[in-house]
Amino acid sequence: MKKITNIAIVGLGQIGVYLYNELRIRKKQIENKTGNKIKVVAISARNKNKKRKFNIDKKIFYSNPFKIFTEEKIDILFECIGLSDGVSKKIVETALKKKIHVITPNKALIAKHGDYLAKLAEKNLVNLEFEASVAGGIPILRTIKEGLATNKITKIHGILNGTTNYILTEMEKSHENFDAVLKKAQNLGYAEPGNPKLDLNGFDAFAKVRILSALAFNNRISKSKCIMEGIENIDLKDIKIADQLNLRIKLLGISQIIENKLFETVHPCLVSKDSYIGNVNGVMNAVITQGKPVGESVLQGEGAGPGPTSSSLLSDLLSIMRGNIKKPFGISSEKRKILTTFNNNKYTNSLYLRFEVKDEPGVLSLITNRLAKYDVSIKRIIQTPDKKNNLATIVIITHKTSELNIKNCLSIFKNNKYIRKLPVLIRLYN
Amino acid sequence: MKKITNIAIVGLGQIGVYLYNELRIRKKQIENKTGNKIKVVAISARNKNKKRKFNIDKKIFYSNPFKIFTEEKIDILFECIGLSDGVSKKIVETALKKKIHVITPNKALIAKHGDYLAKLAEKNLVNLEFEASVAGGIPILRTIKEGLATNKITKIHGILNGTTNYILTEMEKSHENFDAVLKKAQNLGYAEPGNPKLDLNGFDAFAKVRILSALAFNNRISKSKCIMEGIENIDLKDIKIADQLNLRIKLLGISQIIENKLFETVHPCLVSKDSYIGNVNGVMNAVITQGKPVGESVLQGEGAGPGPTSSSLLSDLLSIMRGNIKKPFGISSEKRKILTTFNNNKYTNSLYLRFEVKDEPGVLSLITNRLAKYDVSIKRIIQTPDKKNNLATIVIITHKTSELNIKNCLSIFKNNKYIRKLPVLIRLYN
Repeated sequence: MKKITNIAIVGLGQIGVYLYNELRIRKKQIENKTGNKIKVVAISARNKNKKRKFNIDKKIFYSNPFKIFTEEKIDILFECIGLSDGVSKKIVETALKKKIHVITPNKALIAKHGDYLAKLAEKNLVNLEFEASVAGGIPILRTIKEGLATNKITKIHGILNGTTNYILTEMEKSHENFDAVLKKAQNLGYAEPGNPKLDLNGFDAFAKVRILSALAFNNRISKSKCIMEGIENIDLKDIKIADQLNLRIKLLGISQIIENKLFETVHPCLVSKDSYIGNVNGVMNAVITQGKPVGESVLQGEGAGPGPTSSSLLSDLLSIMRGNIKKPFGISSEKRKILTTFNNNKYTNSLYLRFEVKDEPGVLSLITNRLAKYDVSIKRIIQTPDKKNNLATIVIITHKTSELNIKNCLSIFKNNKYIRKLPVLIRLYN
Repeated sequence: MKKITNIAIVGLGQIGVYLYNELRIRKKQIENKTGNKIKVVAISARNKNKKRKFNIDKKIFYSNPFKIFTEEKIDILFECIGLSDGVSKKIVETALKKKIHVITPNKALIAKHGDYLAKLAEKNLVNLEFEASVAGGIPILRTIKEGLATNKITKIHGILNGTTNYILTEMEKSHENFDAVLKKAQNLGYAEPGNPKLDLNGFDAFAKVRILSALAFNNRISKSKCIMEGIENIDLKDIKIADQLNLRIKLLGISQIIENKLFETVHPCLVSKDSYIGNVNGVMNAVITQGKPVGESVLQGEGAGPGPTSSSLLSDLLSIMRGNIKKPFGISSEKRKILTTFNNNKYTNSLYLRFEVKDEPGVLSLITNRLAKYDVSIKRIIQTPDKKNNLATIVIITHKTSELNIKNCLSIFKNNKYIRKLPVLIRLYN
């Protein structure tokens, strides 16, 4: 007789309900691949009667998700609510303690409580799987944990947020400004209609960076933010200037080991239009891993949306059903290291600086003198006058400069009568 | 007490000896990740005293690999000889029958005897793993079997042979002809010094296509070759003309389901220089998968060489050591289908045709009339005269044309006094 795997889904938003439907239509396929049957025995959400994309079986609906534990025998629980704390955490905690496997696409939860929950899973000999939490349909976590398991990884970077990548791509293409394109993204369902802040300010990408680091470097999830900048201040003007310079602005997440310390960051980068990463456009995500002996490997795919996410959720399901009991982070919690954080101030890049100035004699030399004083050496200057208004735009590309130097250097321009606002700074990707 | 996993390596060529060294230097890491120790208890090759990149422990050396089975207790055997039959097959067969897990990078063996060996592995409840057989360090098989497990895959295509990709890239860059660049590739170790034929004629890529299809479509490994063409006949002239047309020649492996039938092919393709695949250069490999619900996903990485290959071999090792007993092709052998083969003649592409002709009146109309007669409709003509010799090159890009039509159409040009040789035909990638 075949074993039946009992499944509960908690949270029936866009992802949860799509998953629910996938489990229905792929029942036979899952049975074929694993030899076991599945049965969704419980679903839960706040609103039973909300209009959803797919019909739900109201007979198995629970308004209180915690009741599922007492009334049903569950083997695997999908947490699809998406909070970093609250019910999400409580549900996952309870399930693991009751020796129920948990699968979740919730990056906020894992980035915040992943270490604790992983320990709990290991203690109870069940799986905690979160492939869908990073880069949607791209099986990047599995690739690091298994495919590249014995490689010494030194760096991971990539485009980890589809919303911001869509916005940057669209601004370049349409020459519309940030606000207009954000509205377009919201209409297309690429950005949260209510509060898209967590995508735009880099928070979402940063949570993913933390999860990637933990897997790649076998460290506990870090708590310190090296640099986190989003795209809210990216001006159409910078996108156009980048274009002329054969560059393109991308929001990159980067995690690397520098001098045996961990450096994690999310910030906009200028990358070459001829580079691989410069051609990952729209809602696509891409993750580039540098490791030994494997060299550089690239994974690219759709980073968001219920289809790709559900592909990853189902891959976790199959992995559990095939009996792979695994440590959530690849190795046991007690073996995971705590890495010290690399000092931001020493982070070094070529920089793009844009000054908006009054077009008066001596302004350029004011700027260049100041840069020289702080050892910021100039690679290229492009000055574009706006004669009518007696203004000018000065763009400077610097040689490699540390964060500390440039911070000190630029501070003076805050209250300068010739400089109309604080200069725009965008790092060039090395 | 920790379990010790006993390992044998048969074949100590470039791959085998690199793997042997990796097992030595990554011992501790493997123990950390799996909780178990490893011990290489036997190695075997034809020549005990050959000069190798890394020193071997001669105390565990066997000249006759079959003796290992009687003298040692082995848990996992690496087959690194690389033959499609002979000792390679015999060793793998014997190991599986003795309930020893087998890991191999041997695509020729798997493409030819994979179905039989998979059955044997399943019967004996051991693993047969071959991640390294396709696309070196890219964990593409694992991604299809696990990461994309419940997706309905409709098409896989990619650059599956690093040698040919290097040659095509280098011809374009250096404007040297095929023979000169092949020699360069051999000197750099990218092409077999003795007989590079299996790389150049598409055979190597085709073996990989077969393995990919079997995993993606759950079918038995196909026996029929739809179209297999290599790069031996790619002329520098075509590379230069492609360049002018903003195109690039790539040797693509393609596997897809058309009208519920399996179509597998390897042939040179003209791709746009602006496309993703057009920018995978040098020895890099890339595999693009189209599936539902995941959409398009791309994996790129170094496709060959002992480093990447050994990364994949070790990922298989860890998977086995973590206790993942898996069906070699993802599902059990009896559930794998036999797909009928799509008829070549119905394969349809835009075509690049290059005619070398005598520059006499009426030649162009001779060609265009013939094309018209066979419904081959022309998108573009570029005629370049060579006045001095009274010759001309005519390049024609056609609209979509079936293989049958073009074959019949071109046959007449074989014995035509105005046409200097059979026209060159390169398909454009759709």
